[in-house]
Amino acid sequence: MDFKDSLESDYREILRSYLKESNEIALYRGQKFSRESIKQQISPEEIISLHCRVLQDLFPDIQKEVLSSFDFLLEVMMDYGLAYQEHQSLRDRQL
Amino acid sequence: MDFKDSLESDYREILRSYLKESNEIALYRGQKFSRESIKQQISPEEIISLHCRVLQDLFPDIQKEVLSSFDFLLEVMMDYGLAYQEHQSLRDRQL
Repeated sequence: MDFKDSLESDYREILRSYLKESNEIALYRGQKFSRESIKQQISPEEIISLHCRVLQDLFPDIQKEVLSSFDFLLEVMMDYGLAYQEHQSLRDRQL
Repeated sequence: MDFKDSLESDYREILRSYLKESNEIALYRGQKFSRESIKQQISPEEIISLHCRVLQDLFPDIQKEVLSSFDFLLEVMMDYGLAYQEHQSLRDRQL
């Protein structure tokens, strides 16, 4: 199973462990996840969407409005995603 | 009052209106906010932190774990922030 296939289950597992133990190891795993997802060209808005799905999974009674707020955050983050894509293509051109 | 000073109150106002009416106008205001925050060099992790503060404000009874999950999302988003800064400096160098 490659990184993209296991993205959601990995994120769920690391976030669950962070919420349970809130320690440096979980944060370190979060940073590692982040570096890998940048390498795999996962956009920032995909991370927001992933976070929202995992929260829904971990907390089935989460407030409806809090979930809806993620649709808004996703929209705001889309322009950052575009800027980030631009960054990738500028960097590729310079290599 | 400049954009950075009014950042939180603007975001709170736009998100509140989005959650109330969930319409295209609120989404459009979200996109406008996003473009302005990129122009003002607000990092993606600052947006996550802002979203979390505003949720706490709008929903004082939000689950503690959901709030803690934002600390984790913020950590994950930090590397995206660095990639984004790199993008800014590459672009500045090309101008």
